[in-house]
Amino acid sequence: MSHPPLIIDVTRGSLVESRHRCIAAVAGPDGGVVRSWGDIEQPVYGRSAIKPLLALALVETGAADAFGLGDAEIALACASHSGEPRHVETVRAWLRRIGLSAADLECGAHMPYDEPSMRALVAAAQTPDAAYNNCSGKHTGFLTTAVHLGEPTRGYIRYEHPVQQRLLGVLEQVCGLDLSEAPRGVDGCGIPTIGIPLGNTAMAMARLADPVELPPERAIAAKRVVAAMMAEPYMVGGRGEFASVLMEEAAGKLALKPGAEGVYAGILPGQGLGICVKAEDGTSRAAQAAVGRILEELGVFDAAERRALADRLTPPVLNRVGLEVGRIRPAEKAAF
Amino acid sequence: MSHPPLIIDVTRGSLVESRHRCIAAVAGPDGGVVRSWGDIEQPVYGRSAIKPLLALALVETGAADAFGLGDAEIALACASHSGEPRHVETVRAWLRRIGLSAADLECGAHMPYDEPSMRALVAAAQTPDAAYNNCSGKHTGFLTTAVHLGEPTRGYIRYEHPVQQRLLGVLEQVCGLDLSEAPRGVDGCGIPTIGIPLGNTAMAMARLADPVELPPERAIAAKRVVAAMMAEPYMVGGRGEFASVLMEEAAGKLALKPGAEGVYAGILPGQGLGICVKAEDGTSRAAQAAVGRILEELGVFDAAERRALADRLTPPVLNRVGLEVGRIRPAEKAAF
Repeated sequence: MSHPPLIIDVTRGSLVESRHRCIAAVAGPDGGVVRSWGDIEQPVYGRSAIKPLLALALVETGAADAFGLGDAEIALACASHSGEPRHVETVRAWLRRIGLSAADLECGAHMPYDEPSMRALVAAAQTPDAAYNNCSGKHTGFLTTAVHLGEPTRGYIRYEHPVQQRLLGVLEQVCGLDLSEAPRGVDGCGIPTIGIPLGNTAMAMARLADPVELPPERAIAAKRVVAAMMAEPYMVGGRGEFASVLMEEAAGKLALKPGAEGVYAGILPGQGLGICVKAEDGTSRAAQAAVGRILEELGVFDAAERRALADRLTPPVLNRVGLEVGRIRPAEKAAF
Repeated sequence: MSHPPLIIDVTRGSLVESRHRCIAAVAGPDGGVVRSWGDIEQPVYGRSAIKPLLALALVETGAADAFGLGDAEIALACASHSGEPRHVETVRAWLRRIGLSAADLECGAHMPYDEPSMRALVAAAQTPDAAYNNCSGKHTGFLTTAVHLGEPTRGYIRYEHPVQQRLLGVLEQVCGLDLSEAPRGVDGCGIPTIGIPLGNTAMAMARLADPVELPPERAIAAKRVVAAMMAEPYMVGGRGEFASVLMEEAAGKLALKPGAEGVYAGILPGQGLGICVKAEDGTSRAAQAAVGRILEELGVFDAAERRALADRLTPPVLNRVGLEVGRIRPAEKAAF
């Protein structure tokens, strides 16, 4: 029997205007579930939230060291970056280091999420190339591993390619599952995305937080990936981005990563806990408020951090002239 | 006892990735509910979906005729327009006709929803004024009525102002309710928004579709408002906008209007029916798919229209390179 989902309300004036349901789990590295909301056996596409798991291969294959990658690059491999100049330039420099360019990225292109960066491009009448794609760091990490291991780079996004098969192996090990028959789809950036029970994804995140259950090489990679995310929060997201802001404010306490369709993964090294959240309806506002509630329940923030993050954890709803007209916050009753 | 909600699934590959619940009602002008999903007694802010109701005052006070307004202006009074040049220029010309300017609009400003229009502004290093606000037509309608009746224009967005009190009276009559104690909030554009049971909003839309139950002056206004929306679908939304596209394709069969937080109102003059949809989670993709399902159930589209609108009624989910990776569509099972 599952616990009720975590309910997030969006208020306006005297009414709850909209309501979200989130599935969520907090797990330890042994798979023990500390806290759960909703049916955590449900398979969920981790989307970009599991990029920290996908970055393990970059480190443990030796590719990261072979090309002298630092925290900035490893953080970018875990990133959904906002396409600001420093993100894009770091990706380009990294691609040059492995003898490739943005033309080798198979993720497609889109406008930067960061509005000033988007406006600067538009004002310069420029079209973004694939280096601007929020996943360009992850893809550059994939290419780096392929180059390091002498694999073909072309077609690295296909399920059958050694890069993706290696990632599947990592996921099976850290999630403790045979994923050969798991539900499968194509992610926004073209790579396979695998349906994994939410509780298992939380456990995988716990294994990044405390790699005691991981094989030695993978444990070293896990520590390096989490340390890079916490050292370079800006590279993982961008200016003002929810996860970046939380990682900057509560520095060293957590690594946090969003994914499309309302997924969040959290890593709490100090507590050895992993978190996975999925907003049933795919909205990030719901997933963020759920993450806020869970981090609060786990006592992650001190009083000063809680004050500094108040408008992130339960954000105001603003109208067009900037007046607060409501709030996004956990429902007052536990369940509905 | 209410029927189950209307469930909209977002698929990706072999999995339902996200799921939405919608409340919806189809009503006749006498308030009889033809079909319902979820708890339609629940108070819902109609937001911009009820602009056609708010436009009644513009016509029935004589203001529209006094200033020689045509279908374009009346459609704009019902619009959430996308800020394209023709929208903005028509609003500016209308404001000049009543002796005012964009500086008199109290709705605030935002970038055009239409991307080419947004890019053109950015490329020209221009900042949008309030004429670009998607609600600028509605606000110009409010100002027109105030000028016509000799009321002060300043503060016309406040609950206590004659403009808003008049709208409250219209809503009470068309919805058949005393709204003095109804839940209330502030809309994105600054005006009061009133919580009205969803079934009553559907009935109000049915009264626009078939004004037999309305007082004579209001009935004339209703016919004119609905005719203007159907004559000028582009003015009600914009290029490629969901409701505009449906109104263009099924010309003369329906008037349709979205509102923020997943609300849609539909008017079917031929059938004398009104529709109101609210996506519980506030997402427009869910509300649109629900509208599609309901219009299908009501037999609104012929085979050619259904084919032309297929990618609107159950839209594909595309990845960054434009590959179809899923669909947004009603759940296969009726309820969950």
